[in-house]
Amino acid sequence: MPKPVRISVIGAGSATFSLGLVKDLCLTENLAGSHVTFMDIDADRLDAVTRMAERYTAEIGSNLSFERTTSRQDSLKDVDFVINTAAAQSHHHQVDMRDVAARHGYYYRGPGFGNYYNFNLMLDVARDMERVCPDAWLIQSGNPVFEGCTLMTRETDIKVCGLCHGHYGYHHIARTLGLDLERITFQAPGVNHCIWMTQFLFDGEDAYPLIDQWIEAEGEAYWESHIASGTHDIQLSRGAVHQYRLYGLFPIGDSPRLGNWWYHTDIGTKKWWFGEPYGGPDTHLARPVYVERLEQRLSQIREAAKDPKAKMTELFGTTKTLEQQVPIIDALTNNVAGRFQVNVPNNGALDGIDDDVVVEVPAVIDQQGIQPIQVGALPRKIMLEQLLPMILKMEHGLEAYKTGDKSMLLWSALNDGQTRSYEQAYTALEDILQQKGNEAAGEHFQYPWPEGHESVYLNQ
Amino acid sequence: MPKPVRISVIGAGSATFSLGLVKDLCLTENLAGSHVTFMDIDADRLDAVTRMAERYTAEIGSNLSFERTTSRQDSLKDVDFVINTAAAQSHHHQVDMRDVAARHGYYYRGPGFGNYYNFNLMLDVARDMERVCPDAWLIQSGNPVFEGCTLMTRETDIKVCGLCHGHYGYHHIARTLGLDLERITFQAPGVNHCIWMTQFLFDGEDAYPLIDQWIEAEGEAYWESHIASGTHDIQLSRGAVHQYRLYGLFPIGDSPRLGNWWYHTDIGTKKWWFGEPYGGPDTHLARPVYVERLEQRLSQIREAAKDPKAKMTELFGTTKTLEQQVPIIDALTNNVAGRFQVNVPNNGALDGIDDDVVVEVPAVIDQQGIQPIQVGALPRKIMLEQLLPMILKMEHGLEAYKTGDKSMLLWSALNDGQTRSYEQAYTALEDILQQKGNEAAGEHFQYPWPEGHESVYLNQ
Repeated sequence: MPKPVRISVIGAGSATFSLGLVKDLCLTENLAGSHVTFMDIDADRLDAVTRMAERYTAEIGSNLSFERTTSRQDSLKDVDFVINTAAAQSHHHQVDMRDVAARHGYYYRGPGFGNYYNFNLMLDVARDMERVCPDAWLIQSGNPVFEGCTLMTRETDIKVCGLCHGHYGYHHIARTLGLDLERITFQAPGVNHCIWMTQFLFDGEDAYPLIDQWIEAEGEAYWESHIASGTHDIQLSRGAVHQYRLYGLFPIGDSPRLGNWWYHTDIGTKKWWFGEPYGGPDTHLARPVYVERLEQRLSQIREAAKDPKAKMTELFGTTKTLEQQVPIIDALTNNVAGRFQVNVPNNGALDGIDDDVVVEVPAVIDQQGIQPIQVGALPRKIMLEQLLPMILKMEHGLEAYKTGDKSMLLWSALNDGQTRSYEQAYTALEDILQQKGNEAAGEHFQYPWPEGHESVYLNQ
Repeated sequence: MPKPVRISVIGAGSATFSLGLVKDLCLTENLAGSHVTFMDIDADRLDAVTRMAERYTAEIGSNLSFERTTSRQDSLKDVDFVINTAAAQSHHHQVDMRDVAARHGYYYRGPGFGNYYNFNLMLDVARDMERVCPDAWLIQSGNPVFEGCTLMTRETDIKVCGLCHGHYGYHHIARTLGLDLERITFQAPGVNHCIWMTQFLFDGEDAYPLIDQWIEAEGEAYWESHIASGTHDIQLSRGAVHQYRLYGLFPIGDSPRLGNWWYHTDIGTKKWWFGEPYGGPDTHLARPVYVERLEQRLSQIREAAKDPKAKMTELFGTTKTLEQQVPIIDALTNNVAGRFQVNVPNNGALDGIDDDVVVEVPAVIDQQGIQPIQVGALPRKIMLEQLLPMILKMEHGLEAYKTGDKSMLLWSALNDGQTRSYEQAYTALEDILQQKGNEAAGEHFQYPWPEGHESVYLNQ
C-alpha cells in the first residue's frame, strides 16, 4: 500500500526547482496525497510558487496539498523529507566579489572566505532538523554538496543524501556518439564535481573505444567548429578530452570544468580548452548569459503566475524531470528499488578515502535505505592528482570555517594558481572581507598573530 | 662485553663524512676493533679516504680496520650496518639543470624528473642488501630521506633508518636566546624537512615565551641587521618566524627553508624572508658559496692527504661530531640506550599519517631496536597545510617514478608555484629530459597519450 509523505522544501522560491518537484510528485502515483511545505525567506516568491503548485496540481488532477511558511522551524514539523535547495548569496553579490578580485589581478575568481554563508545555512537546517524532525532524511540539493554534506554528516546526526545533476554528462557523450541511452550502462564515482567514468558499456560491451574513434575521427573538427549550445556544454571539449588522455577515464559533468588552474588562466586559454563562444561556464562571457537565461525563465514564470489563464502544465510540461529527489523519496518510502547517484559518507564504498568523507557513488535505494555500491578503487593517478587534493582542500575549508582562522583563508588565496605574490593575496583577501555584505565573514575570520602584526609581513 | 661491528659506507668518497664517521668510531670505546669497508665509484677519492682513515686511526691509537672497494655488492658482505651517503648527481649537473630551467623563466628551480636517479640508487642498495646482508641495518644518510626511505621500506624487507641534521636547528634558537643547551628538552616531529617544535623546555619549563620575548624585543633589529653566518642560517629569519606565527610552532632546520612558494618568487623576496646576503640556501647567490666552501674543504683535505707530515687529527679534530650514525650503531649493538631523531615507518607514532609513510620522530634506541616515541598529533592546521600536502607530493613522486608516466612529471611542473602556463611547464620539462646526462630519465618517462599527440594540447 503506497504511502504519501510530508516534504519540506527549503529555498522553495526557485520556481523552476519547486515546480519540477511538484511535477515529479504528481507523476508518481505512489506518492499521491503527499503534502509539501514550501519555505523561503522571500514571502512574495514563496506565495507565487505555492499558487503555481496548486494550479499545476489542479490542472493535472492530482491530490497533493501544499502550505507555505517563512519560518524554517515551522516547515520542518512532522516531515519525512527535507529538500534543501537554498543558496546563501545571490548572483549579484558574486558579481561584486568578482569585481573586487579583478581589481587585484584575478581573472573571474579570486580569494574568498570559502563557503562560510552556505555552511552556516546548511548547519542551521540540519540542527533545526535534529530538534524538530530528527528522523527525516535531508536531501541536500544546493551547493556545495561535497563540502556541505561532509560537514553536516560530521556535525549532526541527521541522515543526509546530497544530489547533483553532473553525472548526466554521460548523456551528452552518448548523444554525440549517436548511442541509444537505454542501452548504456554507466558508472562514475568520485566526489561531487570530481567524478570519473569507470564504466561506459553499450549493450554490455565496453564503449570507450567508440569514444576513442570519435576523438580520432571527429575531435579536431568538433573543437574547431563546435559552438556551445549553452554555457555548460563542455563535456567533449578539448579540456575534457585532455583530462581523459591524462587519466584514461572521462571526467563527467562539472569535473572537466574544474580540471586545474592552467585551463583557466585567461579567456583565450579558456576558449581553447572549453570552446567557443563562452570558454566554459566560468568566464565573464558565460556568466551573464547563464544568469540572464535564468532570469528570462523567471520572468516568463512570473508573467504566467499573474495570468489566470496560463496553463501551468504548458509552462512546466508533463513529463518527469531527470531530478532524483522524488524517485529517491518513492524508493525509500514505498520500496520501489532503484539505482541512483548519491552523495553520502564513504564508509568503504570508494577505496582509499576516509569513511567520514562524503563521496559520490552509485547506490541501490529501497526501504532498507541508501545502500552505496562498493565501487572499489579509482586509478591511483586520479586519486593522487584529483580526488586526494580535492579532499585535502575540503578538509582545509572545513577547518578554516570551524576555527575562523583568517590565515587559512590567506593560505588558500596564496595557493590559488593565479596568485603571483604574498601581497596580492593578502590585500585582495582584506578587500573581500571588508566588502559590503561580507561583514559576518569579516567578523568570523581573524588572524592568529598578535594585533599590530596584521601586515608586518608584507614585503615592502 | 662490547661488540665490534662491520660497517659498509656507500658513497665513501666524501672525506668530510667518512672521516667524521671514523672519528666518532675511534672515540666510541664500545666499538673498538670494528671494521669499515669504504665503497665508492670514484677509485681515487676512495683511495685517499681510506688512507686518511688509516692515518687518523693510527694517530689516535685506535684499532679500527678498513678496506675499500668499488663493488657495492662486495662491500656488503658480512656487514652489520650499511651507511648510504651517496648522491646520484653532482652539484655541476644540478647547475646545468638550473640553467635550462632559467631559460624557461624559472628562478633557481624548475621542472624535473623527481628523484629518479637517487631512487634508482637507493633501491639498488637496498636490493643488494636483501641478497647479501638481509639482516643488516641500512642507515640512510643521503637525500631524499623522506621519499627514499618510504620507497625502500615499501619495496624491500630491509630495516631502514634515515638520518638528517635538520633537527639541530633548535641549537641555533637556544644559542641566540642565550640558553644553555644542556638544560633544553626538545621535540620536533614531522616528516623529514618538515618538522615542527612541539616541545621546547628550559629546566623543564616551556621556553616558547622566551622566543616570543626575543621576537618582540629583538626580532626587527635582527632582521634589519643580521648577516647570515652561512647560506643555511635562516632558523630565526623573518620566514621562519612568519611560519611560527601561522602555526604556533617553530619549523626546525630545513623546514622553514621550504615553507611555501611565495617565499621564493625572486631574489629580493627571498632576501626579505631569509635574510642577507644570500636569501637562504636556495638562491643563485648562496649555492656557489656553499659549493665553493665544500670544494675549499675538499682541496684542503686533498693537500693534507698528499702531505705525509699532515696530522689527520688536526684536520678532522678529536671531538665527536653531532652525527647520529655511530651512537645509533652503539645503541643497537651494545645496548647503550639513547634518544635519537630518526626517520622510520610511522606505525602510529604520529597521528593521522599512514603506517607505511616514513616520519621523523624521536625514538629510544637500544638492543631491542628502534622504538619510536608516540608523539600524538600535530596541530590540524600544520597537518592540512604542511604535512599532508607534502605526503601527497611524496606519494605522487613515488607513483610517477614507479609508473614512468611523464604526464605526472608535467602535472608536478604545472603545480610549481612559478609556472605561469601549460606551455611553459611542457617545454621546460621537454628540455630538461633532453638534457645531456638525463638520457635514462628521458627514456624512463613517457606520455600516456597516443604517439603524435605529444604537443597537440599546446595552446597555439
